[in-house]
Amino acid sequence: MDKLLATIRTPADLQKFSQKELAQLAGEMREAICRLACTRTAHFASNLGVVELAIALHTSFDFSRDRLVWDTGHQIYPHKMLTGRYDEFPTMRAKGGLMGYPNPAESDYDLFMTGHAGCSVATALGLRVGDDLMGSISPRRTPTEGWSGEGSNRRHVVAVIGDGAFPSGIVFEAMNHAGGLKKNLIVVLNDNKMSICPRVGGLAESLDRLRMNPFYTGLKSEIQKYLNKVPVIGDPVERFLTQMKDAVKAGLLGGMLFEDLGFRYIGPVDGHNIRQMQKYLRMVGEFQGPVLLHVVTEKGHGFQPAEEDPTTFHAPAPFERKNGEVVALKSCAAVAYTQIVRDAVRERMKADARVVSISAAMCQGTMFEPIRDEFPERFFDVGICESHAVAFAAGLAKSGLRPVVAIYSTFMQRSYDQIFQEMALQNLPVTLLLDRAGIVGPDGPTHHGVFDIAYLRPFPNLVLMAPGDAADVGPMVQMALEIDAPTAIRFPKADAVTVARQVKPLELGKAEVFRTGRDGTIIALGALFPACAEAAERLAQEGIEIGVINARFVKPLDASTLLRAMKDSPFTVIVEEGALMGGFGSAVLESAGDAGIDASRVRRLGVPDRFVEHGGRKELLADLGLDAAGIAKACHALVKSIPQPHRVRVETRQRV
Amino acid sequence: MDKLLATIRTPADLQKFSQKELAQLAGEMREAICRLACTRTAHFASNLGVVELAIALHTSFDFSRDRLVWDTGHQIYPHKMLTGRYDEFPTMRAKGGLMGYPNPAESDYDLFMTGHAGCSVATALGLRVGDDLMGSISPRRTPTEGWSGEGSNRRHVVAVIGDGAFPSGIVFEAMNHAGGLKKNLIVVLNDNKMSICPRVGGLAESLDRLRMNPFYTGLKSEIQKYLNKVPVIGDPVERFLTQMKDAVKAGLLGGMLFEDLGFRYIGPVDGHNIRQMQKYLRMVGEFQGPVLLHVVTEKGHGFQPAEEDPTTFHAPAPFERKNGEVVALKSCAAVAYTQIVRDAVRERMKADARVVSISAAMCQGTMFEPIRDEFPERFFDVGICESHAVAFAAGLAKSGLRPVVAIYSTFMQRSYDQIFQEMALQNLPVTLLLDRAGIVGPDGPTHHGVFDIAYLRPFPNLVLMAPGDAADVGPMVQMALEIDAPTAIRFPKADAVTVARQVKPLELGKAEVFRTGRDGTIIALGALFPACAEAAERLAQEGIEIGVINARFVKPLDASTLLRAMKDSPFTVIVEEGALMGGFGSAVLESAGDAGIDASRVRRLGVPDRFVEHGGRKELLADLGLDAAGIAKACHALVKSIPQPHRVRVETRQRV
Repeated sequence: MDKLLATIRTPADLQKFSQKELAQLAGEMREAICRLACTRTAHFASNLGVVELAIALHTSFDFSRDRLVWDTGHQIYPHKMLTGRYDEFPTMRAKGGLMGYPNPAESDYDLFMTGHAGCSVATALGLRVGDDLMGSISPRRTPTEGWSGEGSNRRHVVAVIGDGAFPSGIVFEAMNHAGGLKKNLIVVLNDNKMSICPRVGGLAESLDRLRMNPFYTGLKSEIQKYLNKVPVIGDPVERFLTQMKDAVKAGLLGGMLFEDLGFRYIGPVDGHNIRQMQKYLRMVGEFQGPVLLHVVTEKGHGFQPAEEDPTTFHAPAPFERKNGEVVALKSCAAVAYTQIVRDAVRERMKADARVVSISAAMCQGTMFEPIRDEFPERFFDVGICESHAVAFAAGLAKSGLRPVVAIYSTFMQRSYDQIFQEMALQNLPVTLLLDRAGIVGPDGPTHHGVFDIAYLRPFPNLVLMAPGDAADVGPMVQMALEIDAPTAIRFPKADAVTVARQVKPLELGKAEVFRTGRDGTIIALGALFPACAEAAERLAQEGIEIGVINARFVKPLDASTLLRAMKDSPFTVIVEEGALMGGFGSAVLESAGDAGIDASRVRRLGVPDRFVEHGGRKELLADLGLDAAGIAKACHALVKSIPQPHRVRVETRQRV
Repeated sequence: MDKLLATIRTPADLQKFSQKELAQLAGEMREAICRLACTRTAHFASNLGVVELAIALHTSFDFSRDRLVWDTGHQIYPHKMLTGRYDEFPTMRAKGGLMGYPNPAESDYDLFMTGHAGCSVATALGLRVGDDLMGSISPRRTPTEGWSGEGSNRRHVVAVIGDGAFPSGIVFEAMNHAGGLKKNLIVVLNDNKMSICPRVGGLAESLDRLRMNPFYTGLKSEIQKYLNKVPVIGDPVERFLTQMKDAVKAGLLGGMLFEDLGFRYIGPVDGHNIRQMQKYLRMVGEFQGPVLLHVVTEKGHGFQPAEEDPTTFHAPAPFERKNGEVVALKSCAAVAYTQIVRDAVRERMKADARVVSISAAMCQGTMFEPIRDEFPERFFDVGICESHAVAFAAGLAKSGLRPVVAIYSTFMQRSYDQIFQEMALQNLPVTLLLDRAGIVGPDGPTHHGVFDIAYLRPFPNLVLMAPGDAADVGPMVQMALEIDAPTAIRFPKADAVTVARQVKPLELGKAEVFRTGRDGTIIALGALFPACAEAAERLAQEGIEIGVINARFVKPLDASTLLRAMKDSPFTVIVEEGALMGGFGSAVLESAGDAGIDASRVRRLGVPDRFVEHGGRKELLADLGLDAAGIAKACHALVKSIPQPHRVRVETRQRV
């Protein structure tokens, strides 16, 4: 098994292989990826698609001195296998194992941890300029043998970016800058005709046209021959004729968009033909100035079910296979928050024609595919363009519609300024659905959505809610779409749970008191409410009576309910699945401070001031003390540490 | 004076004017803008440049039903004069007067308040789609007479965007989406060859080439004639020939970048020729699908000094003029924080070759022009591309450089996700200089930089500082460029002040105790420290002794100094020039809570939970109670309200 692959310790080991062996190696790598995908959810189709590209890159350059940045790094698996991490490959995405994205802590071959799309060209340009300047500052500080520092153009800088990430605004910003600087920079556009969902936009159509161009279809030489035959007559229009020949060439050879930005455009080339890619990679390595190499790959290449349905096989549930066919896709029976939110939006879209939905290339992740199919006129996938998504929604809202923007909490950071200017400042009724808020699990630090409470709550006008359980979802979506204010709802990547209770109707800015208790109170924000309820239940069995409040709103905050509980309780524990700095607990403290209430008996549980690693969501929450056991333990400690007099006094008061 | 201009109540009044009168009107509008600029600082050159464009737009469309979005709205003055606000024009940018940006609260002709660049295409596309959908939902909800709702394509949607804002990523995202949707949308590219600073990047060069194209130079018909003469021979290459003729056309007529995104490109046309613009605006109004009209204007047009130096005349200090010449540019003698910070960076660049600087089209505002001129190899203006600026800096830092990114606090919001992923998560030593942090004054709510503390402090690894006065600046810049961590320094748009004292050396995460006082303590963050010192001085004259701490660091927070002061003081007042929600005071409360300290005698002064209007910075700070008088008043109130026993107890303790 993995006869060739198992021998690779560094990319230099690839040099010994013949083309035939490289092809065999590609097969072994694909097989290893398939084996992994049979054991756990992992990014699959995208990794199958870049096997040959990774081999071609590592055989055409020496990335122990050259620079390689993988954009949206979930297609990093082949690169990891080729850079000394084959043995650890089965640990991919497990806690303590390899990260499913580039990780500088794992290997010097991984330069940037990239989970958000589109930044590779910018960072690669920074590396290019930085290496040049560092070379001129300290030519002897040779990072690895073979690089002289001086004239560091010898050091190649390559960014690999998918066509899905390509429309992201920062790519354009970086290419425009690179085109102006005219430094040597290689951008490999990995065009698999897909984002996770089918790609969208005018650029997608241009790329499709490029695939039709004669260079790719092998007719280039015929055209060159013809061009040489075009007559250049006389004088007055000669200037235009010269221009015309360039124009013809550009028009036929394609890529004028890139050329207009100052890049040379080469391609498209077949991304599964190692030899051809090597040829073109070496060629562009010799170019002066920025160049874009357009490589065409197929998502899921080499594994038929994934080729046929790359969206399903983007990051599929573990599956069984037999003779290359997928026998069974294991799926979990539980219903996720994502689905319940989607269903609530769908209901509102049925009931109110003004409700429209927007996704940023994540209809699959946000489960909005049925909405896309059912309301094609009222659903918009804008591609990986979160900034545009929110500004576009603001325009829709200004026209009288009620747009819903469903984007993961962490990716919503891309819209931060549009949430400020286009949404909150204009006070327009746009609804943000912050999916994957909190600890997401195996995707790790680039994907955990822990900052949204802190980054959103300072904005005036905004209403920010978090459902305590599944029962809160429907009413929250409905309220968001009915009130005349910008709104946001945050919810986790987790199975939806309903806490058994007589659900109190949702009221703007009001918390729900779930249970009372003389010994202390837990204020729960969002999806940790069930864990808080369970902790209280466990404590009750030991005779410790803890009240639980389902806060529901971060903003407006239900100060009266929360502060009353705080005053009346021996202690208060505030629980949130988000950063403690500036988070929900912080909002409660502000409120207490403004009211002149002593909050010294308040403990805040949440995500501490460090980046949380990857692993299972439950494992990570337990590590952070954010499961029922951890919350109960925190309460226990407080029961012991809070001085008796205070407890007695409060008990007395409560008995009166 | 203003014979024609004074008669305009709505844009419909323009219809009565002949072309000659429109030209006269343009002259009157220019004169009104000049008069304004003689009385107070206002956006000048950009407004002079779009006088004819505004007239052409309002005579070619009816924006009581059509839609007009001005990007980066500081060139809104001609539009305001033509839409019923001529009488109020002299109040521009004064508190209570007209806002220097579009303001929906002033007029229905202003759709979005736009101070940040680049969002116009996105919101205009939203309006286009929204109007279409709203038309199909409720065709009778006619907003104004003349619009049937049905087939709302009759309603034109126009975005006007400058070439400075154009490279901003969100423009590309929105154009890509519009190109895919194929809806009718008019984007007017106002190309004045400038951002505020000279524009940069590959696209700028493309636009320059377009200006050279035969369409603009009047030779279009000659080419068309020639094209018809190109022979179409035989069969095998016929397909290519057809393609070739298109290619020639596109190549010669230019704008392939826009065409590749799915836009039709028309232009360039002369932006000071009203008749010509009217012709083309009406023409593009008839087009199906998205179209870009390239208009060439001159910044400062019609006022020679501004034509010659549009950067200086972007938003000049009030000036006197005589016979069209500027006699004197009034300038204030005081040195601003911006300049002191710039000088500190310049010193570090001289001392350390690894230090490089990045601006996002704001070398003038951030006063980095001398750095640009002195270190051309180590200074990068990336254009209005804040996202790229930070990611690019991260690449530079990875190479070993020490990049400084100087961007206004409010515009830094555009980099939010890059600060997260490329900077904080990778723990790279990039230094953000958050200029204009706090209340900026006449630019108003789009420009106040009040959210940065709240949005930055949740990020792990980040060091966030604010100089208490001018003496803190140099050491902070030096520290930022020496420690191995991502750092940010926030400072206001204000004259720099130095508080007379023996300055305590800067120490990471340490506050400076400026004075002690038995009656209470003020903890000052950043530039309000001098006001706090003054408040304490005033109170001392009344026999009230208040201590003052210059906090210096938001993160890491000097918990030991601040909490000790809090414990020992009858009351504590925390003062910051930023949003109270999630701000510095909130950080102190978190810290107190974690330490189990009673913070009920703490009052936080800062920017409340609403958007602050425009006006003078001092006026606005006074309104918010953030000047010495307001701070002293808050202390007074606390001295009275804090129960005597506590004060006595503390006094006793201090005497021991």
